[in-house]
Amino acid sequence: MHLIPVDTDIMSSNEETAAENREFFRANGIYVVNLMSAPGAGKTSLLEKTVPAIKDDYKLGVIEGDLVTTYDADRIAAMGVPAYQITTGSVCHLDARMVHNSFHGFDVKGFDLLIIENVGNLVCPAEFNLGEDLKVMVFSTTEGAEKPKKYPLMFNQANAIVLNKIDLFPYSGVSADELFRNVREVNPEAPIFPVSCRTGEGITAWIGWLRDQINVSAMKHAA
Amino acid sequence: MHLIPVDTDIMSSNEETAAENREFFRANGIYVVNLMSAPGAGKTSLLEKTVPAIKDDYKLGVIEGDLVTTYDADRIAAMGVPAYQITTGSVCHLDARMVHNSFHGFDVKGFDLLIIENVGNLVCPAEFNLGEDLKVMVFSTTEGAEKPKKYPLMFNQANAIVLNKIDLFPYSGVSADELFRNVREVNPEAPIFPVSCRTGEGITAWIGWLRDQINVSAMKHAA
Repeated sequence: MHLIPVDTDIMSSNEETAAENREFFRANGIYVVNLMSAPGAGKTSLLEKTVPAIKDDYKLGVIEGDLVTTYDADRIAAMGVPAYQITTGSVCHLDARMVHNSFHGFDVKGFDLLIIENVGNLVCPAEFNLGEDLKVMVFSTTEGAEKPKKYPLMFNQANAIVLNKIDLFPYSGVSADELFRNVREVNPEAPIFPVSCRTGEGITAWIGWLRDQINVSAMKHAA
Repeated sequence: MHLIPVDTDIMSSNEETAAENREFFRANGIYVVNLMSAPGAGKTSLLEKTVPAIKDDYKLGVIEGDLVTTYDADRIAAMGVPAYQITTGSVCHLDARMVHNSFHGFDVKGFDLLIIENVGNLVCPAEFNLGEDLKVMVFSTTEGAEKPKKYPLMFNQANAIVLNKIDLFPYSGVSADELFRNVREVNPEAPIFPVSCRTGEGITAWIGWLRDQINVSAMKHAA
């Protein structure tokens, strides 16, 4: 089967570029968050709640990954934050090279926080490191309680799991208990943030935790 | 960039195998439906509504594609219908070869209707023909009204678009009008079936249409 060596090549090449990105980010004091989810789970909505709360405290930039369109970058730019849209064409994830190449068009050196919103896909983005400090996944509760076990890699790799659309629990028929239990089964440690980007519920706890991660990292690298 | 030639090779090899599958299905009088969606949009739930209504009229089998687990095949088998689970490991879509290989373990020759439920992913499954007669996509209304324009390929390729979870429109803040308009913009022709797999609303219209497709195809090939 030709898929295996091809994958392996792509993966090891991606790891090299991711390491270069990481070195570049470190050297320039940029904390980097890779935000991943299935389509429509609420990554951009989470940013719309998060960005206004933190944009005065950090020099923040956002990279948006989509197949086509600049809708998401437009939504970020509307908040007065520099945003750069990568359109991947038919590629179902961002890779380290795409992020690297964006530096030619997007001057990230002035940022101390860079958030990269990945292509909406619960599978492939988890396999491609970008050189980030933090992988955060957003999961919409309406996607169903069994999904952590069906898509274990992203749930497992996430440093934090934001469960969005909790306001729809009463209407969707999805069991919150079962969902939490299944998340814990594939990721015993990452903090879980139940939120509703629509109502704002739970957003403060998420933002507080994110601030802590950024600040602790800055202290470490200053030390 | 190494991605382009690699993709091209994989694609042309997939098209060859898809053509072989198609010939095999035709020769054996099997009508084949490829069911695609993002994770959690409701493919298996749609089958749970569809299968009981049609299983006495067709010799029906189901192939389930997932990264890991046999949950979906178990849900189908619970309805007394033969089901075969393909687990792709880390591969984010089914391809024609995986379907072909399943014939060694799953005797499809006795079926006159084979439904293949693809891996939950709004991007890659649309690029891989399996040899099917019909591509049907399921879209959850909670994923957001702009998604047809952000993920145009699958919406464009679909022969029918099932809009699931319409019972959540009043709670999700998603505009039904905008969603319909955006679907039509990328696919002017495919019938759209607004349904709720939870309440059963709209299911009859979808099943009626599906029956028509199968019966018309059978008449054509008998003629």
